[in-house]
Amino acid sequence: MASVTGLDGVVAAETELALVDGQNGYLVYRGYEAKELALKLSFEEVAFLLWHGELPSPEELEAFKTQWVVHRAIPAELKAVLDLLPKESEMMSVLRTAISVLGTGNQQVPAWPPQFDRILANTALLPTIIAYHYRRSQGLQPIEPDPQLDHVANYLYMLTGSVPQSVHAKVLTAYLILAMEHGMNASTFAGRVVLSTQSDLASALCASIGAMKGPLHGGAPSEVLHMLDEIGSKEQSEAWLRKELAAGKRLMGFGHRIYKTSDPRAEALRQLMQELASEDPWFDLAVHVEKVAVELLNEYKPGRKLYVNVEFYAAAVMRAIALPTSLFTPSFTLSRIVGWTAHLLEQASCNRIFRPQSVYIGELPTSIPNRP
Amino acid sequence: MASVTGLDGVVAAETELALVDGQNGYLVYRGYEAKELALKLSFEEVAFLLWHGELPSPEELEAFKTQWVVHRAIPAELKAVLDLLPKESEMMSVLRTAISVLGTGNQQVPAWPPQFDRILANTALLPTIIAYHYRRSQGLQPIEPDPQLDHVANYLYMLTGSVPQSVHAKVLTAYLILAMEHGMNASTFAGRVVLSTQSDLASALCASIGAMKGPLHGGAPSEVLHMLDEIGSKEQSEAWLRKELAAGKRLMGFGHRIYKTSDPRAEALRQLMQELASEDPWFDLAVHVEKVAVELLNEYKPGRKLYVNVEFYAAAVMRAIALPTSLFTPSFTLSRIVGWTAHLLEQASCNRIFRPQSVYIGELPTSIPNRP
Repeated sequence: MASVTGLDGVVAAETELALVDGQNGYLVYRGYEAKELALKLSFEEVAFLLWHGELPSPEELEAFKTQWVVHRAIPAELKAVLDLLPKESEMMSVLRTAISVLGTGNQQVPAWPPQFDRILANTALLPTIIAYHYRRSQGLQPIEPDPQLDHVANYLYMLTGSVPQSVHAKVLTAYLILAMEHGMNASTFAGRVVLSTQSDLASALCASIGAMKGPLHGGAPSEVLHMLDEIGSKEQSEAWLRKELAAGKRLMGFGHRIYKTSDPRAEALRQLMQELASEDPWFDLAVHVEKVAVELLNEYKPGRKLYVNVEFYAAAVMRAIALPTSLFTPSFTLSRIVGWTAHLLEQASCNRIFRPQSVYIGELPTSIPNRP
Repeated sequence: MASVTGLDGVVAAETELALVDGQNGYLVYRGYEAKELALKLSFEEVAFLLWHGELPSPEELEAFKTQWVVHRAIPAELKAVLDLLPKESEMMSVLRTAISVLGTGNQQVPAWPPQFDRILANTALLPTIIAYHYRRSQGLQPIEPDPQLDHVANYLYMLTGSVPQSVHAKVLTAYLILAMEHGMNASTFAGRVVLSTQSDLASALCASIGAMKGPLHGGAPSEVLHMLDEIGSKEQSEAWLRKELAAGKRLMGFGHRIYKTSDPRAEALRQLMQELASEDPWFDLAVHVEKVAVELLNEYKPGRKLYVNVEFYAAAVMRAIALPTSLFTPSFTLSRIVGWTAHLLEQASCNRIFRPQSVYIGELPTSIPNRP
C-alpha cells in the first residue's frame, strides 16, 4: 500500500513563537522560558505575550482582561445550537461544532486576514462552552461566568459552581500556560494549512480542534492518572513501582519523544508542587512518586535516561482539582488555542499556500472495459 | 518576519488515487483517464472506483446507487441546526457546520478508522444540505430529493424544483467527475493531516471544507464566467478578446500552474460541448471563444503556450445550467469530497501522524523583567 512519511524532519515554517529544544530541555515562548512564565504570570498575560510578542504593561493588562470578560458569555444563537446537540456528545466534537457556528454568523467580519478581536473572543469563550456542555451532559444547570475571576479560576468555577481554592487555580494556571504552545505539531500545522488558502479563523480552528481530538496527538495525561490512583499513597509507591518494573512494564509519565533530558514543563510543575506540597496530598504524592520512580528506573533500566514528562505532573494537577477525565483534552484545547491562534497570525503575516506533492503508485492508465 | 515554504515540491504521501501529469497533460484516477471516465460514466460509478479501486459490476452499481438514495434525506437533528443558522450564512461555513454536527451525534460509530458507511452518507447528503440552505437563503421552500434521479440530476432538481434537461445533467456530471480528485492539494492535505492523529471523519472533512473555502484554493470559475458574459456572442468574440489582449490584460481560463500542455479536464468538456453545441448556445460560444482566444494568444503572446484550463469550460457548464455564483465552490465541494474521502481511507490504511518541524527565529531567552 501507499506510504506516508508524516513529514518527519521537514521544516514547514519558521516561527517567532516557540523554541522547543529537546536536547537541552528548553521551552521558550517569545524569548521567555515557559517555566518562568508559568510560575509567575497569569494565563491572560502569557496569551498577550504569544499574540503580541511582548508582555503587557499593567495598563494594557487591565484593559486586556476586561476584553476577556466581555467575551465570556455564550451568544444566544450558539446556545440554541448547543441545546440541540445530544447531551452525551463527545466534547471535542461539540467544540468543533461551536467554533464552526461562531464563524458562520459573522458575515460582517472580514474572513481574511484573521481578526484579533475574533481570536480573543473564541479563546475567552471556549471555557464557557466546555462548562456549559459538561454541566448539560451531567443534567446540571449552567453556571454563568463570574467577572471577578480570572480566566482559569472562572473555568473551574463554571464547571463546579464553587470558587476554586487559590492553590488549585494556581497549579492549573501553570499547567495551562505550559501547554499553550509547542512549536509545530499536528493540530497547529493543520490550522496553518487550512488558513493558508486565505480561509477564515473558524475553519482553521475547526481543523486544529479536529486534529487535537485524535488519540495520537497526545497531551492528555489519562494514563498517568490511572497510575497515581493505583499507587494511592507515598508508602505504597516503591512496592507498586517495583512490581511494574519487575514485570517489564513501561512507567507512564516517563520519557518523551522530543525531550531527551528533563522536560521543562514537568520541572515547573514539580517546583510548584514541592512548594505547595502541604496544600494538597496529590502534590506531595506526585513529587514523591517521581523521585522513587527515577531511582528505580536507574536501577531497572540503567543508562536509559528516562526523565519525567509533563503528563506526569499534569495528571497530579488534574487529580488535585478533581477534573473528570472527559475534560482533559478539552482543557488542553482551551490552552493550546492560544498557540494555534498565534500561529495563525504568524501564518497570515507571511502566507504561502501549503501544497505539497503526492507520488502516484497506482495502476497505469487503461481504457474502460466494454461492459454489458 | 517568519517565512513559510508552503512545502512546495515536498512529497507528503504516495497515493494510488490520482496521477497528475502536468507535463504530458494526463489526469488518471486509479488507472483510468479522468477524461474518459467523465464522458462515459456516472458520478456514482467514478466515486465507486475512487473509493474501492475498481469499477463496479452492474449488480454492485445498482446496490450502490440505492445506498446513495437512502442517505439523501437530512436527519431531523441536523435540519433543526440548519434552521437556526442565519439565512444569509455563507454556504461553505454552513457545510462545515453541518458536517461537524453529523459527526457529533454518532457516538455508536467508531471514530477510527473512518467508516465507509459514514463516508457514503456524508457524500450522498451534501447536495441536499446545499440545496436546503440555498433555497432557505432565497426564501424558498425546500425540495425533497427524488429517488428516481441520480446524484447529479437530483442536485439540480433540489436546487430548482425542475428535473434538469438531460444535456445539462450530462455536462455537470462530466465536470463534477473531472473535479473529484487531483492528487495532493491544500484541502486534501488538510484532511489527511487531521485524520493522521487518528481523529474522526467529521474532523477531517471540516478541515478539507475549511481549506476549500479559502480563495487561494482555486477551482471556482467565477472570473471566466464574467468574461463569457461580457463576450455574449460568437460574433463579438474576436473584437472583445483583441481589445483585452491589446490592453495587455490576462485572459481568464488560460494557463495553469500544473498543466503545461492541454488540461485534460478542459479537453473532456470541450469534446462534450462540441458534440452538444446545438443543444445550448453557451456550449457553442465556449468552444468558439476558446478557438479564437488560442489563435489570438499565439498572435499576441507567441511562444507562451497558454492552453485552456478546466475553469474555462467549467464556467460554460455553470452558465448553461444557470448555477448562481455562490454555489460554484459548494458544487466543487460536493465533487471533491469523493477524492478527500478516498484519501482518508488511504491515509488510514498506512497511517503515520503528520508532524513536521518549525525553526525558531524569535528572541533568545531572557528573564521576565521586574515590574511594579
